[in-house]
Amino acid sequence: MSAAPATLIALLHGPDQPGLVARAAGWIFERGGNILHADQHRDREAGIFFQRVEWEPAFAGGAPATAGEQLMRPVNLVAAEAEFEQFARDTLRMNVRILSSADRPRVAIFVSKADHCFHDLVLRWKAGDYAGDLVAVISNHTDLADAVRGYGLAFHHIPIAAATKQDAEDRQLALLRDLKVELVVLARYMQVLSAEFLQRFGYPVINIHHSFLPAFAGGRPYHQAHARGVKLIGATAHYATRDLDEGPIIHQDVAQVTHRHGVEDLVRKGRDLEKLVLAQAVQWHLEGRVLVYGNKTVVFD
Amino acid sequence: MSAAPATLIALLHGPDQPGLVARAAGWIFERGGNILHADQHRDREAGIFFQRVEWEPAFAGGAPATAGEQLMRPVNLVAAEAEFEQFARDTLRMNVRILSSADRPRVAIFVSKADHCFHDLVLRWKAGDYAGDLVAVISNHTDLADAVRGYGLAFHHIPIAAATKQDAEDRQLALLRDLKVELVVLARYMQVLSAEFLQRFGYPVINIHHSFLPAFAGGRPYHQAHARGVKLIGATAHYATRDLDEGPIIHQDVAQVTHRHGVEDLVRKGRDLEKLVLAQAVQWHLEGRVLVYGNKTVVFD
Amino acid sequence: MSAAPATLIALLHGPDQPGLVARAAGWIFERGGNILHADQHRDREAGIFFQRVEWEPAFAGGAPATAGEQLMRPVNLVAAEAEFEQFARDTLRMNVRILSSADRPRVAIFVSKADHCFHDLVLRWKAGDYAGDLVAVISNHTDLADAVRGYGLAFHHIPIAAATKQDAEDRQLALLRDLKVELVVLARYMQVLSAEFLQRFGYPVINIHHSFLPAFAGGRPYHQAHARGVKLIGATAHYATRDLDEGPIIHQDVAQVTHRHGVEDLVRKGRDLEKLVLAQAVQWHLEGRVLVYGNKTVVFD
Amino acid sequence: MSAAPATLIALLHGPDQPGLVARAAGWIFERGGNILHADQHRDREAGIFFQRVEWEPAFAGGAPATAGEQLMRPVNLVAAEAEFEQFARDTLRMNVRILSSADRPRVAIFVSKADHCFHDLVLRWKAGDYAGDLVAVISNHTDLADAVRGYGLAFHHIPIAAATKQDAEDRQLALLRDLKVELVVLARYMQVLSAEFLQRFGYPVINIHHSFLPAFAGGRPYHQAHARGVKLIGATAHYATRDLDEGPIIHQDVAQVTHRHGVEDLVRKGRDLEKLVLAQAVQWHLEGRVLVYGNKTVVFD
Repeated sequence: MSAAPATLIALLHGPDQPGLVARAAGWIFERGGNILHADQHRDREAGIFFQRVEWEPAFAGGAPATAGEQLMRPVNLVAAEAEFEQFARDTLRMNVRILSSADRPRVAIFVSKADHCFHDLVLRWKAGDYAGDLVAVISNHTDLADAVRGYGLAFHHIPIAAATKQDAEDRQLALLRDLKVELVVLARYMQVLSAEFLQRFGYPVINIHHSFLPAFAGGRPYHQAHARGVKLIGATAHYATRDLDEGPIIHQDVAQVTHRHGVEDLVRKGRDLEKLVLAQAVQWHLEGRVLVYGNKTVVFD
Repeated sequence: MSAAPATLIALLHGPDQPGLVARAAGWIFERGGNILHADQHRDREAGIFFQRVEWEPAFAGGAPATAGEQLMRPVNLVAAEAEFEQFARDTLRMNVRILSSADRPRVAIFVSKADHCFHDLVLRWKAGDYAGDLVAVISNHTDLADAVRGYGLAFHHIPIAAATKQDAEDRQLALLRDLKVELVVLARYMQVLSAEFLQRFGYPVINIHHSFLPAFAGGRPYHQAHARGVKLIGATAHYATRDLDEGPIIHQDVAQVTHRHGVEDLVRKGRDLEKLVLAQAVQWHLEGRVLVYGNKTVVFD
Repeated sequence: MSAAPATLIALLHGPDQPGLVARAAGWIFERGGNILHADQHRDREAGIFFQRVEWEPAFAGGAPATAGEQLMRPVNLVAAEAEFEQFARDTLRMNVRILSSADRPRVAIFVSKADHCFHDLVLRWKAGDYAGDLVAVISNHTDLADAVRGYGLAFHHIPIAAATKQDAEDRQLALLRDLKVELVVLARYMQVLSAEFLQRFGYPVINIHHSFLPAFAGGRPYHQAHARGVKLIGATAHYATRDLDEGPIIHQDVAQVTHRHGVEDLVRKGRDLEKLVLAQAVQWHLEGRVLVYGNKTVVFD
Repeated sequence: MSAAPATLIALLHGPDQPGLVARAAGWIFERGGNILHADQHRDREAGIFFQRVEWEPAFAGGAPATAGEQLMRPVNLVAAEAEFEQFARDTLRMNVRILSSADRPRVAIFVSKADHCFHDLVLRWKAGDYAGDLVAVISNHTDLADAVRGYGLAFHHIPIAAATKQDAEDRQLALLRDLKVELVVLARYMQVLSAEFLQRFGYPVINIHHSFLPAFAGGRPYHQAHARGVKLIGATAHYATRDLDEGPIIHQDVAQVTHRHGVEDLVRKGRDLEKLVLAQAVQWHLEGRVLVYGNKTVVFD
């Protein structure tokens, strides 16, 4: 997890077959690449093989390049990326997603009024924790405009009312496309994104739900939790799908509560959970550690 | 929480009113009693006051007695118990439950085939952790008969089939009455107790559910958890009520799981959770730390 | 823990004696006060009694006042405070510290270059989590000057070199006195405060140490932890005393690490721990929940 | 982590060099083996590569055998083991340790008077959790003799006094050799094993220390923890070395404590920690997941 030179990361999955580890590793080795990490998982029940492999590719010039050289020769990285992708798809017959450390995905954060997840994410960005670029903050309210601009970030206000929802989503999508955004993070954004939005956007959307899903799906989860008298509250980061609160779970955590905690206390205590769980999920996503299949995730942490 | 002399423990709850702490404490003090712990809670929304107070009563003979003396004079403890009960009910107008450390509730464990919670509970009993007496183990199977008898405990086999369920419950109830049982612990007992059973038994029944309720209520919770792809599994100890898996929650805990864990792994990992959560709930119950109101608990830990 | 009306909080400790709970509660009740919380603890080995009691005092005018009325009559709160203090000291013969919710202690944060605890504390202050006023940020470096001023806070640069240390501490003390500061929070402040400073300041100083004390006291604890190969890293919030890293512990927490984590990863992962542990300790302190005796704390949470 | 067919597990470590993953995977693949898991780690600072690889070897007869067939042809497994060992050592120039799932290491537990870790381990053994055979329990006291025999296990009483320590260790070693023991688990065994014992035994010894090492090394850690006023207690499973409490740490965990817990409570609460931490360490060791280098461990969990 330390600072790393320029690398490629491939996420593979598909029907299990003998030799997958050896063949992927062999292909990289034969081309002078050096594998840094290779983590794989077999779902024996489903007969599916999953792998995350991270390597330093070798370059035309010969010996494996240093990080500095690689950054100067991005074309090669792109070529290596395409070559491996073809190999994985055509020869190994695997689904493959490939990332290069030379690329930094462009990210937008959606917020409403609550600011705790927003501040937390931005401060981590400023601390250099994230392998991506934060390019916009979009909100249906103006409450956070000053805070966003205070960080030197672009703030986009796109109000939403029941009658204007489709219109607003059109504007959001146009903005995301203009900004070439490849990841949206819903940092306590209090609007449901329509199935059409998700489909048209076509990139992942990470949401934080303030409960231990599937418990307390839907609205006002802390009120639900308080009414049920649970002894733990939770937070769940998941990919948004057309089925609200049903998307693949990336990360979850809980904190202890007692009868002494009223709903307000759960809300306050929950803020720390939400921040940490969402921040971790975003980091894993940007580091190419999350592989989605069906309605579940494989997290190579 | 250290070894304590003979004491009385009162659990009070009722409409909030000024002076409740002072009046209860004053009543005890005037009679020469010494309060060891007094913990209270106000539910401001509901306007309810809850208190657990534990004290060493003074005795007829004069100075506060030592534990040894008290055990020789159980009548006084009973009298003090009754006197406080009357005061709390008639003067303070509170619901009250009172326990004496001279009483040791008689407990029965219900098991089926799984033995992990059973062994865990019995070993804690043997270590002296519990303020009660384990007087019987009842099972609808014979798998654990030898293990139970190996500990020198009475094993009662009461088989259950769909057609004989009411009959079997009658036999269970008769046995519990004969044995003067005041608490039943369902240690992974795989039968649902009927509403009639619970009503006729009239004493608390503690169950362990192998999920983080309300998530994955019902059968095969580890299978449900695996299918949903959660990142934490849980266990919940609760009082059994006529609404299956809906009773007041006493204690919950969770453990981290990953995509590497198959259902079998969840089952295995869950056993440690189930043991610890059930063991803690039983201990709190026997120490008079759990107060039930509505469908929730106040745990004075 | 919900939003509360104007109250008094007393922290008492001293030799145990029968009737302490009843006498304190009775005194408050007789004067028309209403106890909201009364939590006590007996250290049986040492024979010491500890109590935290929080109550709404009644006022000259008669019936218990609402929060609004109390805020309009601060003099009465001060009188009630003094009266109880005298009772506790002279009649109960207890050490006593008394806080009023009408007072908001003035707080200064000391920082050096690391900004994570600083941002975290300030954002909690802005969210209204703290029962005190943040009046100054003091640093031996200028790195955080802009960030501090960006929040609209006063930044004070007091550089320190070996030769000028006493001088710098004089300046710090003068500033703290001018600002009437009653609590200093060391938010990863990388200078050791001298025993003279602590003695002359005379108010509590809370420090965050980035290890699970007493493991890895002294400098570079993450390096020490990495070298030892521990599987958990920790953070410890404690009151600063003349014995470095030896002061009374208020709060501690840990996070799991593996062989995959290099020192840099421990540093990064540790930041979240440090933030949460320090934030909690400051909150407990400001709510009058921490009672120090000898080299330990009683935390009435 | 599910039930697995007969496999080989190799633990490799040595100077990092390009192609290690590919060459090991290629070697196995060329011989018809199927890699189930291959986890590796690079210590960039030290330039060391670590790998755990688990595979189903192919057998003389052709197609990869089922678990059942493999169990009938143990000779082949031994041959495959030797062949890989030679390859890893001579060709890859790595340190290697290789385990076969057809082998079940023979294990002895050392106890004194405390029985909680002992019962916990034995019950896990009976539940089939461990990839090894428990062949003896050795104690310097007779307190647990009946409990041991009650499980149908051999109990060996080897008393130790200061004057007879060397003699006793000679007897212990003779017994371990007779029983072909390859792992000793110290389940709260209250004697220090001499450096000579460890050297002559020549196999790993796992100890459970009842603190979060390196905090509170040495005797009476719960007393030390109570005196220091820590807010968490811990347990540490480590390999025993000639430096008491300084051996490579395998696993650690902690539990929260408060001022309400006296030393006796820490002892009681600590028992659950000790059980879980030791049980996990033994399981990882027996599954070939722990690689020791220097004074640290790499745990491939």
